[in-house]
Order: sequence, then C-alpha cells, then structure tokens
Amino acid sequence: MTTAHTLTVQALHWTGTSLRVLDQRQLPDTLRYDEYTDAAGVAEAITSMRVRGAPAIGIAAAYGVVLSALQHFSSNPGHWQQAIATDIELLANSRPTAVNLFWALDKMRSVLDRPQADPVAALAACAVKIHADDINDNHTMGELGADLLAGAKGILTHCNTGSLATGGYGTALGVIRSVYQRQAVTIYAGETRPWLQGARLTVWELSQDGIPVTLIADSAAAWLMQSGAIDWVIVGADRIAKNGDTANKIGTYSLAVLAKQHGVKVMVVAPTTTLDGSIASGKDIHIEQRNPNELLPPCYVVEDSLVSGWNPVFDVTPAGLIDAIVTERGVMLNPAEHGIPLAWLI
Amino acid sequence: MTTAHTLTVQALHWTGTSLRVLDQRQLPDTLRYDEYTDAAGVAEAITSMRVRGAPAIGIAAAYGVVLSALQHFSSNPGHWQQAIATDIELLANSRPTAVNLFWALDKMRSVLDRPQADPVAALAACAVKIHADDINDNHTMGELGADLLAGAKGILTHCNTGSLATGGYGTALGVIRSVYQRQAVTIYAGETRPWLQGARLTVWELSQDGIPVTLIADSAAAWLMQSGAIDWVIVGADRIAKNGDTANKIGTYSLAVLAKQHGVKVMVVAPTTTLDGSIASGKDIHIEQRNPNELLPPCYVVEDSLVSGWNPVFDVTPAGLIDAIVTERGVMLNPAEHGIPLAWLI
Repeated sequence: MTTAHTLTVQALHWTGTSLRVLDQRQLPDTLRYDEYTDAAGVAEAITSMRVRGAPAIGIAAAYGVVLSALQHFSSNPGHWQQAIATDIELLANSRPTAVNLFWALDKMRSVLDRPQADPVAALAACAVKIHADDINDNHTMGELGADLLAGAKGILTHCNTGSLATGGYGTALGVIRSVYQRQAVTIYAGETRPWLQGARLTVWELSQDGIPVTLIADSAAAWLMQSGAIDWVIVGADRIAKNGDTANKIGTYSLAVLAKQHGVKVMVVAPTTTLDGSIASGKDIHIEQRNPNELLPPCYVVEDSLVSGWNPVFDVTPAGLIDAIVTERGVMLNPAEHGIPLAWLI
Repeated sequence: MTTAHTLTVQALHWTGTSLRVLDQRQLPDTLRYDEYTDAAGVAEAITSMRVRGAPAIGIAAAYGVVLSALQHFSSNPGHWQQAIATDIELLANSRPTAVNLFWALDKMRSVLDRPQADPVAALAACAVKIHADDINDNHTMGELGADLLAGAKGILTHCNTGSLATGGYGTALGVIRSVYQRQAVTIYAGETRPWLQGARLTVWELSQDGIPVTLIADSAAAWLMQSGAIDWVIVGADRIAKNGDTANKIGTYSLAVLAKQHGVKVMVVAPTTTLDGSIASGKDIHIEQRNPNELLPPCYVVEDSLVSGWNPVFDVTPAGLIDAIVTERGVMLNPAEHGIPLAWLI
C-alpha cells in the first residue's frame, strides 16, 4: 500500500464498442467492472450510482450516446436519429443535479446535428476528447489549486472528487494530489453519509497513491476545525451558478458555514463544464432527493411507518462562503465579489 | 406502531440480585437483555456500549456497586470493603467523559462510608433511588423544556437521550415527548455517526411511542436549518462545566455553531448530576477518543495502513452557543451570562 502508483484507477474504460464501468458501490471491498453496450445500461449505471461524480457522469453519458449510435445507425437506417434522440433523453433523466451531464449531452447533440458520413466515428471522437480533456483539465486545476496552498498544513475534503469521480486525477482530489507532491500536508476526509464516498472511495484512492489520509465522521469536522488542524476545506462541485453559488454533495454547505466561523478557507475545484451560465444563482439549482431508504434501517421501510427520512444528496453553498473557485481556465478569488468570469462561460 | 404506549422501553432492569441490560448495539433489529451479576460485567457493558447515555451509565454503575457488595460482603468478611473499592475503581474506568458515572460512584461510596449493619441493603436502596430519581427528574425537565417551546414547529435532536440513555423518559427526548403532547411539532433526528444512536435508537424509541420522526444525515442539518424547518436544536449532555460549557456527543458543537448562524435556538437538557462543579470551563473536560475502527472499513484496519481515523466521540459546545440549559431544578437562559446557578451544584 505504500508503493506510489503512476496511474490512478479509472472509473470508466472505453473499449471502442463498449463502456466498462467500475461499480463504485462495491468499493473498497471489490474492484469489479460492468460492461455496457447500450445507452439504457449507461443511464442505469448513472442512476444506480455505479458511476458518480459530476465529470464522470458527463463522460459516461457521452459514451452512452456513442453506444446508442453504434446500436442504431446501421441497423435502423431510417430512424436512427430519432432512436439516438430518445436515448439522449433517457441519459438526461438519469440524475438531475450535475450539469456536466447536460453539457456533455449538448456537445454530443451538436456533433449529431452536423451532416457527416459516419456519425459513429464523429461521436466516438467527441466522447474520447471529452474524456481526455477532462483529465488534462484536472491536472491543470491540480497545479492552480496547489498554488493557493503555500503554507497550508491541514486540508479537509468531502465526498469523492478523484479519479473515480472524473476522467482521471480528480478535481479537489487532484489539487490534493498536486499539493502533496509539493509540501508536507495532512489530509482529512469526511465519511460523507449516506453513501460514504469519503470512507469508501476517497481514502481508497489516496492510499492507492501512497498518500496518508485520516477519516472523520462528518459531524466531527467542526471539532477538528476548532482544534486548529484545518487551513482549507477543498471540495468539488456538481453545478456552479453565474454568481458563484455552488451545488455539491450534501454537507458541503455545512462545512462552508463552519469554515467561515473558524477562519478556515474554502476552495471549490471544478472544470468549466460544471458552470451553468443559464442560472443567475443557486436558487435555480434542482437538488436531487434520493430514496430515504439510503438512510433508514430496513425495519422502518414498511407501510405506515412513523419513521421517515429526508435525503437531499446535494446542497448549495452561497458564493459568499467560498474563498476560491479553481477551474482549468484560472482561479477566481472571492467569487461573491464579481461572480464567474464571463470568459469561463463561453 | 401507531399505538401510544404508557411505558417506554427500559435500558436497565434491576432484579434484586442481578442487572439486566438491554444490548443497545443490537437495536433496532434485536431486543435482547444481558444479565450481569458482578461489577466487572457491568463495567464491560458500559465500555462496550451495550448501555450508553450519561444518566444510564451512572445508574448502571450504581447497580454495579450493589452487585459487588452482594458478591463480596458475606463471602469475604475481612476484605469486602477493599474488594468493593477495587470494583468501584473498575467501574470508574469504564468510560471517561460522562460525569454522571463519577457522581453515582461517589454517592455509592458515601453510603459505604457510613457504619451500618447491612451495607448491601443500603447500597441497593441508594441505587434504586438514583434510578427512580432520574426518571422523576426527566419528567420534570420534560415539562420545563416544553414550556420554552411555545410556537416551535420544528425540532432537531442528536444522538439518543431517551429512555435508553437514562432511567426512563429521557432528557432532550423527554422534552420532545412532553412537547409532542402539547402541540403539533415536526421532529428530526440526526443519524449520529459513527454509532448511529439517532438512526438506531432515537427513531426507534419515538416510533414505539407513536411519535413520527424524520431521520437525516448529520451533514444535512445545516441545509435543513437553511430551509427554515428548524426552530430549536435540543440535545442532552455528558458533562457541563461551571460556566455552562457542555460536552455532548460529537456533532453537537457543529449543530450549535450552525444553529447560531441560522437563528435556530439551542437547548441542553440534563439532570444536575451531569453538572461538574469541579471544573471552570469545557477546557478541562476529558474527551473520549474511541477506536478508529468504528469509522474505518475493515480493509484499512491493517498494519502500515495509510488510512487512519480520528474518532473523538464527544465535543464541547461553549456556553455562548447555548440558549437554555434545562435541569430538574430549573431553567437557565443564556448560561454564558452567569454560568450555572450555584444552587444547582449542591
């Protein structure tokens, strides 16, 4: 476990005719890839959270469109465009909050709209480029984010924003990977209930890379900040509004409020594909509510139960609680002052 | 499940010659009592968290002393006092944070110090009285706390402070039981990682009493407060310093900071046996660190693991974040202004 790996694990592997998806629900106990050959399978893999993380969802959906074209273009000459449009709709309905999903599907739609001899090849090229660009962008963000962390001794992250959540390397976890190469820093990860992305995925990824990490209960973050151990909270994003308000995993808003009260800084790391230029503020972000069964002991999942669950899986952090937004195009300090740069939205 | 019960479940049942302890680690799936006939067994039941909750720990320890006397008084005529003193020491070392444990053991020691013909009967009478007084005090606090809640529509509680954590009825959960009899109110319970006292115990207790309750992930509390659903956070305590600083389950401090930022009030409910007049502030409270294995997936509990866990199971909420402390002797509003009334410490 102490060996440094040059290649980090991949959540998604495109074979040319299928998409292999690491079933993240089974980590860290089991490393198993499921193979999908149609868009419906990919949509189900997203809905069931076999693959999760805003950038990874977008990439998976792009490959899902390629699989749809592979299935329908030659076998269904008269109606392949309609069949693909139906599959895109299916993919768009797989999860609601991460905007990368809709961005990737728009990108694929624009390829479809172009007249061309072989849409399959063009779509595959686009999906592969979305994937490769995401990895490159993550490395860029890793360095930009690390530049802000000179002197930082303790970092707390939430959820999983690493290779498993992206094309590779990661957003917030990419910054953590980069800063760990530069300086001595202690990394803390919150468990991230109810799905335990922190406990199951983040600590697993970091240990695969030889980076020590300390796991905490989400509710221990305030007490940890109070001890002085944390300089920065670094998180990813599922959708960022024009004013900088940021939707991310449930608990991020809590950490941001607590950080402000303890003099801890907050960094959001996300590619510009996570920006939603169509909404002015976080009020317009649709927050996914998942099944309360993710929280409830099974004995309460019965008819007429007096025990219910409230299970929003994202929350919105106002820009005013964010000290820096890091994208592959640059860094915006104190986003509440000016909002997201217009150039990032193009 | 909708039938109202007049008797709530009991964590501890004294038979006269043994202590029956509900194994709370197995709730809500299994309702099983273990029977103890010596102090070592009771100490282990406390350490292993078969029984938990500050008042319940104190009561269990008192019965543990009775069991010690039953074992040693007649069989060990020359050295029974030493044997009991050794057992008291064992009980005192079972867990460090809840002061009720030490209070109950002091009370039992003072009975032992009195010259008397039958120390067993005197000790048993004292333990039974500690138990009965706790139940009565909880009902008193329930009404006093409910008096503060006129107009409250939403209440969030943390950990388990009900019948399972006390002699019966509960501290914070006693207030919730009482206010539910008076007015329409929505109760939310935090899961309370890592041990899930909220998910396993609190929602179970409330549903046994016919009280609807909604479970949330601990990290969703801020987002819930932000929605305006919560008027009060109501919690118990494991130790309260003279200035009102309060040690309670990890996550309480987080909730108190978040409550202040959202205009939500914070009530601490605890019998005066939870007050520690020997310490000026929360800085002097010993915070128990439990095994990180309570947090870590088993694959990380190996030699040379890069993944560690930080598992403090209590934190300290400064008095300045508390709006009311409710004891059986009365209510102190804004405890930071004057500290705990001297009369409560006697």
